[in-house]
Amino acid sequence: MKPEIYSARLAKIRDWMIDEGISLVMLEDTEGRRDLNIRWLTGHPGDALLFIGAGQLPKEDKAILVAWDVNLAKIYADHSSVLIGSYNDFGRKPIKAIAAVAQTLGLPVGAKIEIPSVTPYPLFLDYVGEITDYDIICGKKGSGAELSKLRAVKDSLEIDNIKKAADITNEIIDLLESNVLSGKIKTEQAAALFIETEARKRGCEGTSFETLAAGAQRSFAIHAFPAYTCEPFGTDGLSILDFGVKYNGYCTDVTLTFARNLNPKQEKLVAMVEKAAKLAASMAQSGTLAKDIAASVDSFFNKSKKKMPHSLGHGVGLQEHEFPVIRNAADNEWVLEPGMIFTIEPGLYDPVLGGCRLENDILITENGHEVLTTARIIYL
Amino acid sequence: MKPEIYSARLAKIRDWMIDEGISLVMLEDTEGRRDLNIRWLTGHPGDALLFIGAGQLPKEDKAILVAWDVNLAKIYADHSSVLIGSYNDFGRKPIKAIAAVAQTLGLPVGAKIEIPSVTPYPLFLDYVGEITDYDIICGKKGSGAELSKLRAVKDSLEIDNIKKAADITNEIIDLLESNVLSGKIKTEQAAALFIETEARKRGCEGTSFETLAAGAQRSFAIHAFPAYTCEPFGTDGLSILDFGVKYNGYCTDVTLTFARNLNPKQEKLVAMVEKAAKLAASMAQSGTLAKDIAASVDSFFNKSKKKMPHSLGHGVGLQEHEFPVIRNAADNEWVLEPGMIFTIEPGLYDPVLGGCRLENDILITENGHEVLTTARIIYL
Repeated sequence: MKPEIYSARLAKIRDWMIDEGISLVMLEDTEGRRDLNIRWLTGHPGDALLFIGAGQLPKEDKAILVAWDVNLAKIYADHSSVLIGSYNDFGRKPIKAIAAVAQTLGLPVGAKIEIPSVTPYPLFLDYVGEITDYDIICGKKGSGAELSKLRAVKDSLEIDNIKKAADITNEIIDLLESNVLSGKIKTEQAAALFIETEARKRGCEGTSFETLAAGAQRSFAIHAFPAYTCEPFGTDGLSILDFGVKYNGYCTDVTLTFARNLNPKQEKLVAMVEKAAKLAASMAQSGTLAKDIAASVDSFFNKSKKKMPHSLGHGVGLQEHEFPVIRNAADNEWVLEPGMIFTIEPGLYDPVLGGCRLENDILITENGHEVLTTARIIYL
Repeated sequence: MKPEIYSARLAKIRDWMIDEGISLVMLEDTEGRRDLNIRWLTGHPGDALLFIGAGQLPKEDKAILVAWDVNLAKIYADHSSVLIGSYNDFGRKPIKAIAAVAQTLGLPVGAKIEIPSVTPYPLFLDYVGEITDYDIICGKKGSGAELSKLRAVKDSLEIDNIKKAADITNEIIDLLESNVLSGKIKTEQAAALFIETEARKRGCEGTSFETLAAGAQRSFAIHAFPAYTCEPFGTDGLSILDFGVKYNGYCTDVTLTFARNLNPKQEKLVAMVEKAAKLAASMAQSGTLAKDIAASVDSFFNKSKKKMPHSLGHGVGLQEHEFPVIRNAADNEWVLEPGMIFTIEPGLYDPVLGGCRLENDILITENGHEVLTTARIIYL
């Protein structure tokens, strides 16, 4: 990423802070409370606190990073942020780091400091109890929500990265098809490790998440458990392969279903999932309410008394699951706009027939949409 | 696991609930807020809410599970819990599920309901605002802390599983040594995927976490980023390999350092890490304060003006990081007792020399301790 992109992103969140009267925002990426906004704002891959000052305080436009691994931070983040020591220097206690940063910035008494909206209630009480000079803010509509909104619409650099990840994904899909057809890939593990190998060979950081490879005996589950085993893959019935690759931090997320010697009920299941995917894609354009697409698919399935046990889709980006949400829920207010990239992944699952899911990644453009990935039903 | 073990565990948490006057506890394992206590209490691997009633309410000793994937729950959890429908039936809203469960159990108005201690503050406000008939409890010293204490001391079934995982880990360590020595494993990726393959071949669910394989150019980082690449592994200098395997859900966590053609400074680094590991192990026995062991290692390193940038160790079990904490911190009150299993993992890292970490898993016994794993410095 170009260094200036980070300054531009920081400027956006500072604009929001000034509007809200917030002087200091703390972001936290620690075990149990991951936050990829730190990577989005600085390039640093994680395990850190990030402090952003706004208003008349900051002497410069850099943010203050408190990283667990200072050596790693020097490589990834020093163009957009200042390091004021390691997370360990503050006993791994965000409250102590806040005190140090407040002093560094000369934060006036009574200033508003926002802590992450995911802060547990008992921990929130500690913040309020121990930080008495400042006004601690922690709410749903905070910087986290603002960052989610910003990140839901990808800029051109992000679109380039996801397109590159999609190209690699598509190459791997073609190779998976030929290798399962030829019998070279015969087990769930062989499929999963093939993807790991091919992704890194092409310069990816890795896969977006642990690959789910479920042979015909296990495809009934939405997310197979365990994720993959040494059991056969691609035998009679329906086998599901759900994976993604991560390029410069940017994820794809696709699902293929492999079908062999289906019975009529299984054929019907597959045909319905394919129709649902087409129906959803046909509605994907700027201005559409995300929940309307999901509702159309749910109602299409309901006509045949089928029920999809998960959302229709979700945004992809630095995280494998981010915004917008493509779910049929009354409180889902996401409206599609150009630059949004999300999955469409209709699926049906049956303890006897097995499962079928078809998932592709879609970019909303000015004039409609572009399907970035080539996941499909593969007949063996 | 034997079904009766789950009833016994539920009984323990119910005893605690009765002492605390809590009628209903809700556990949540969802994206962003994982909780392996649900697996520990029911066998269900995840994505679910679990409700435990106590006092005069429950008609039976089973807990109530609200799973995302009902088909999966029927396989893994139906011996210890009752399913009252899918998480989707409640619009994925815990508050709605609580209302249904309260009705099912006939919970009297004013009863105490505990929600997870990790519940974000803004979400806590929603619970309190929407659930007016009951007293919502959310605190640090809740059932989560109680479960952590219970889980920190393994029972004999758990010890058997971890010992089996350790045996598999040790076989893989020997194979890694011979394959790196013979030149069969030459890259980070080859090492990482070898572990994935060998673990599942031996019946493991998978690895405990994404393997960290850092060749000599990348071993300076505490946790290499990315976790592994196609770069060389085991060339001149220090290469780190941090991995674990998961057997029946139970994790190991070990780190090997591979050393080739070291310069005197690197040799000294390795010698110090080895000495620190021996020092720590020599103190590992029932009754010892965990922080005292970590303090001894820190002070040993400090004598040579070295600093370890992470904790000395952590418990292992269903999670790769759990209790006890083996950290040099004033508020760390863990005392070792028989049945505790944890890592001892001294490490030193230098941007020029590279890094060295040596991590093994240790079981505290009545008479001392048992080192379960055979991680070591491997000279190439």
